[in-house]
Parts: sequence; structure tokens; C-alpha cells
Amino acid sequence: MATLVSDSLAKKNNDKASENSTAQVIGGHGTNSYSNNSSYQRLSVNIVTKKIEDAIMKNLDVETLSSTSNIFRVADFGCGVGSNTINSMQDLLQIVKKKYISQCPTSSQMPEFQVIFNDQFTNDFNTLFTYLPQDKQYLVASVPGSFHNQVLPKSSLHLAHCSYSLHWLSRLPKELRDERSPAWNKGKIHYTSAPPEVLMAYATQFAEDLDNFLSARGGEMVSGGMIVIVGSSIPDGMPYSQVVNGIMFDCMGSILMDMVKTGSISEADVDAFNLPIYACPPGEFIEGVERNGLFSIEVIELMNPAPWLKGPIDIPVFVKHVRAAMEGMFSNHFPSKSIDELFDHLVLKLSDISQQLESCYRDGLQLFAILKRK
Amino acid sequence: MATLVSDSLAKKNNDKASENSTAQVIGGHGTNSYSNNSSYQRLSVNIVTKKIEDAIMKNLDVETLSSTSNIFRVADFGCGVGSNTINSMQDLLQIVKKKYISQCPTSSQMPEFQVIFNDQFTNDFNTLFTYLPQDKQYLVASVPGSFHNQVLPKSSLHLAHCSYSLHWLSRLPKELRDERSPAWNKGKIHYTSAPPEVLMAYATQFAEDLDNFLSARGGEMVSGGMIVIVGSSIPDGMPYSQVVNGIMFDCMGSILMDMVKTGSISEADVDAFNLPIYACPPGEFIEGVERNGLFSIEVIELMNPAPWLKGPIDIPVFVKHVRAAMEGMFSNHFPSKSIDELFDHLVLKLSDISQQLESCYRDGLQLFAILKRK
Repeated sequence: MATLVSDSLAKKNNDKASENSTAQVIGGHGTNSYSNNSSYQRLSVNIVTKKIEDAIMKNLDVETLSSTSNIFRVADFGCGVGSNTINSMQDLLQIVKKKYISQCPTSSQMPEFQVIFNDQFTNDFNTLFTYLPQDKQYLVASVPGSFHNQVLPKSSLHLAHCSYSLHWLSRLPKELRDERSPAWNKGKIHYTSAPPEVLMAYATQFAEDLDNFLSARGGEMVSGGMIVIVGSSIPDGMPYSQVVNGIMFDCMGSILMDMVKTGSISEADVDAFNLPIYACPPGEFIEGVERNGLFSIEVIELMNPAPWLKGPIDIPVFVKHVRAAMEGMFSNHFPSKSIDELFDHLVLKLSDISQQLESCYRDGLQLFAILKRK
Repeated sequence: MATLVSDSLAKKNNDKASENSTAQVIGGHGTNSYSNNSSYQRLSVNIVTKKIEDAIMKNLDVETLSSTSNIFRVADFGCGVGSNTINSMQDLLQIVKKKYISQCPTSSQMPEFQVIFNDQFTNDFNTLFTYLPQDKQYLVASVPGSFHNQVLPKSSLHLAHCSYSLHWLSRLPKELRDERSPAWNKGKIHYTSAPPEVLMAYATQFAEDLDNFLSARGGEMVSGGMIVIVGSSIPDGMPYSQVVNGIMFDCMGSILMDMVKTGSISEADVDAFNLPIYACPPGEFIEGVERNGLFSIEVIELMNPAPWLKGPIDIPVFVKHVRAAMEGMFSNHFPSKSIDELFDHLVLKLSDISQQLESCYRDGLQLFAILKRK
């Protein structure tokens, strides 16, 4: 069940605006690093790999793709730092090779494969490269820059992957930074349990980001190329306060307000701080893809990100994963000495409401979609 | 004059063998970092830029290149960490754009441009990316891996640049590590002033590396694409002891042997240590390109890397530059506490022989070559 949270917070924000609190996963290989605390993500990936295989075997026309080029490029958008991105890309290559063998059994040779890792300019690509296997059978490139813009040459990409990255907003909506706006989010750090204007501001920003993402990929991808999208979601119409992440965000807001009372941090800082994270329900996602118009939807479904996880949450481990993914966001905004206090109190507070956490909705919180470039 | 040395030692070794002492420039932005101590390289680049412009305006057929692709890719092989690689790539793009305007004045639009930075997996690409201008008008990728192997897709590259990188040998020849070989380099750290067998071992390894480099680029480049090569050289037949670098390497060897006497380091360590640096004379370079057969030589000449530098050398500044480029090689092999001693003594020793340094040969020590893919 820890996966419900840690997956959806695991990836670095592809933020292009420096004005906001931005997500920063912890780089390197240290105790609190993302690379050493992202094992749950891998479990989740294994489940979707089978679904991706089904879609590629059925819908990716490698014969047509290889008729125009001897290179097949696969890119991970929002790759982060851990080895999961490398494993995911290798899984994708295996599937594509299988499709080649199946669709072009008489072809004399495979195309060359290039794996491209994209994330923000500030991503720790140095550490990422240390995870590459020595005997890799593919070419590698890293491409820094926000995936809300074009980062690859036009019509150069055949298969894209974007896992638990789209939920990071490119920036916080202006309304959340305007004291006079009805979306000024007093005493809270997320749209969970907030006024509808706050939710609307988040949703509008997500829709704009999704449109930019799809337009950028639309330019980069060849016709017939596919995007695999995996990420945080929630059933249409369900309030975010019914899921573990939402309850945790409420707890974090409440802990921060307690810290205001003891003078550790200022109330203005809490009011101005909002987590730039939006779990898009499938209905809004479908609308966004259709409005953009460059891609058809081949597969879309909500799934349980971790159906094998039952029973009580190991809260200290769970918070350790959350911290690995989120610490940077808080430490960019609040004094560094307050960070330990926040996460220590989070362990206590979540332990107090462990029964409420157990009974949360946890089934359809992962969006799985495969889009095809028209 | 400092440039004579610091240029030729500035770039990281594209070493694929972990068994040897490998060059490591100092990453990051610190006092002894390469990025803060590579200003001389930029001066040298400005002189060759005019020569590159002449060759591109005369020999690069952008009309033919753009007839098959809307993307024009430029790559720097052995890019290192400093801003020089970015400036060089931007200079090349300006020249290519000028050629487009001149050759295709009626064309409705420029191709897209992608700049590719290549260096070893251990290169500090994170720091390199911090130097990229915010308003850059080109796409960017980094491609980790030894440039002695293929690192880019076949027939994808239009213009290559390799500045002060080819002189780093991919590995130390075996003979230099065999006590029973006539090329066992007792009491020395380079082929300068060494037996002819030592020089031969270096030259043979360089020829193999050059062939691998050209074969790899030959596969990656489109027909008609060009490679610009700038690097350390020396007139055919001139011993390396007649140039500043050679004298400095002799001094370093002699300082290390003094340190053996005081017990700071062991004699076996000095005997086994050899700088993997070879300044290829133009005759050998031409032979290598012709033997490889994939490229025609459009331009080849020896030039003075820094004709504007006259008069006495500022030896402390000069050694600071040398140290930024070379410290990693020594610290991989010798105890870290001996490194300060080595470079402190080098300042003293070079100061003692400053007149000899002034009278060294300094004219034709930079090879400038432009090759064209057949």
C-alpha cells in the first residue's frame, strides 16, 4: 500500500518556472536518496509491462516504422535518477524486439536502438549513467529540459514512456499565489479538502500542461508512434480526501500549522506553499487528449497500482519513501531545520489514524494509457 | 605560452580501460576545477574558428545534406565540463547557418539544429548543462561513452568537432606495464627523453585509437559530413623534449623520483606510471586517415596554438592550469598527500629553468585538420 503514495510522488517535477516551490528528488546514492528508496516503483512497473506488451504486440506497426528509418528511438520523459528508468526502457526494448521478430520474421536485421533519458536540466544524469549496464545493446542519450516543450528533433521518436511524472504541475497557478483570490489556499498545502476554486485552479493548470506535453510529443514522434503513460489518478468525481495521499497532504498541512503555533515557521509561508501535484481523473485526461487532437487513445484504464499490498502500512518505511521523493519541495520553501520535524510528526500523525488509512479507497488510483500518434 | 601546455592537457581522457591511470579533469565550479581554469582554451578556439568557417563555407554542401533530413546534428567528442564546448558548438552553428543562407538563399526555413555533447560516462554532464544559455536556439543531448566506439545512430551526424581530446590514449600500451619489456619506462612518466621502444608503443596505441575513432565517426556520419579536429601535435621528426610539455613531463618524472628518495612514494609506482598522452605529428596523422579510408583530408596544417603569447611564462598560473587538467591522473595512482608536493615542486623546478622554457620550440604544436566523410 505504500506504493499508493510513494509511486505517485516518486518522480521529479519537470518544472520550468523557478518562481514556485519545485519538486526535487534526492540525487546520488545516499540513505535518503531517491535511487535507494524507489524499489516500490519497480514492483508497480512489472504489472504494467504486461499491458504494454499487449498493446505493442497488437498496435505498434514496426514494419511501417522501420521502412522509413534504421533507428528506433525510445524515450523516457521525466526519467528521474533511479535504475527504474533504465529497467523500464530495457523492458520496452525487449517488447519492441519481440514485435519485430513477430511482424518481420524474414527481415535480415533489427534496427539500431537508441534510449533517450529526459528530465529537467537539474536532474542528476551523472548518477543515472552509473546505473547503465556495461554490456548494454543500445545507444544512449540524455536530453535535458522540460517535457512541456520540444526537446527532441521533429519526427525522430518512435516510442515514448512517461511514468509518474505528468502529475507534477509545470508551475503553481497564479490564483494560488494571490491573497485576494478565492483560490488562496489558507492553512492547506494541496487541493485536498480545499475550496472548489483551488481544485479548479489545479485542474486548469494540469489541462494546460497536458496539452503542452502532447503537442511537444506530437511534433517529436513519427506517425504511428506510441506514448505509454502511467501515473497518479482517481476515479471521476471522487474527492482526493478519500485516498491515502490526500489524507497525508491534509496531515502535512495540519502539522505545518502546528509548527506555526510553536513559531518554527510563519503562517504566511504555509499559506503560500502548495504542492504542485495533480492526480487527473480519466475523464479529464480523455478530454485533454481529444481536445489536443494529435493522438488517438488506444488503451485507457484505471488500475490498482499495488494490488498485492494488503494489510497494515509500515508507516515509518512509507514516510521514508515519501521523504525521499518530496523533501526537496519542502526544503526549497521552509527552513531546513523544520524538515525533520515535519516528517517526524508525520510518522506520529499517520500512526494515530492508521485505521482510517487502512479503510481508504485504494483500487483505481493508477492511470494507464497508451496513445498513438495520428 | 601557457596555452601550449594547458590546451594540450585540458580535456578528459576518453579512456575505456579501467586498468590504467586515466585522466580526470576536476568537475564542478571549485577553485581548482577545470571549468574555472580553462580560459586559455577559449583564446585558442577563436583562432581556429576562422579556419573552420573558411572550410565550411567552401566544402560543406548543406544543400545536399538538407535534402535528406530536416535536422542538422553537430557533436563535440570529448566535450569535457567547461563552457568552451558550448561556445565552440555555438560558433559552429553560426557558421553552418551562414552557409545555409549563402547556399540556399531561397529556402523557406533552416533545418532544426541539435547539439550533442559526448564524453566518458564519468564526465560531469550535470555541471556542463548548467552552462547552457536559457535562450538557446537549438536542441541538446548528451551522449556518454568512449568516442573510440560508436555512440550515435548510423548516418545521423552532419558535423563533428574534437578539440584536444584525441591525444588521450584509450589505454596504456601493454609493453609499458611489463617490467621485462624494452618499453618499461623506468624513472620516467612519458615518452619524452625515453628509449625509442617507449615512443613506438605510444605511437602504435595512438594509431589504433585514431583508427577506431575514425571508424566510429565514419559509421555515425552522413556522406559529405565533416569532422573538425584540433589538438596537440609536433613537427614530424622533432623530439618531444624540445617543447614545453616535454620538458615539464621530464620535470614531473624527476620530482617524483626525488619523492621516491624521501620515501613519499615508491619507485615501483613511478616506473609503472605513464601519462597516456600522445602528440601525433601530421605525417602519422595523415597516414592514419588514409589507412582508415573513410574520410578525405580537406585541410591539415600545424599552427601555433597561441601566437599572441610572448615573453616570460607566469609559472604559478601555468601550473595551476596544468593541475586543473592533470591532477586526477596523478591522484588515481599516487597517495593524495603527494599531489600538493608534486605541483608545488613543479612551480619551483620550472622557475629554475624558465630561460630554457622561453627558448623552446612553440610554433607548430597544434594540429588543425578537417576531414570529410566520403
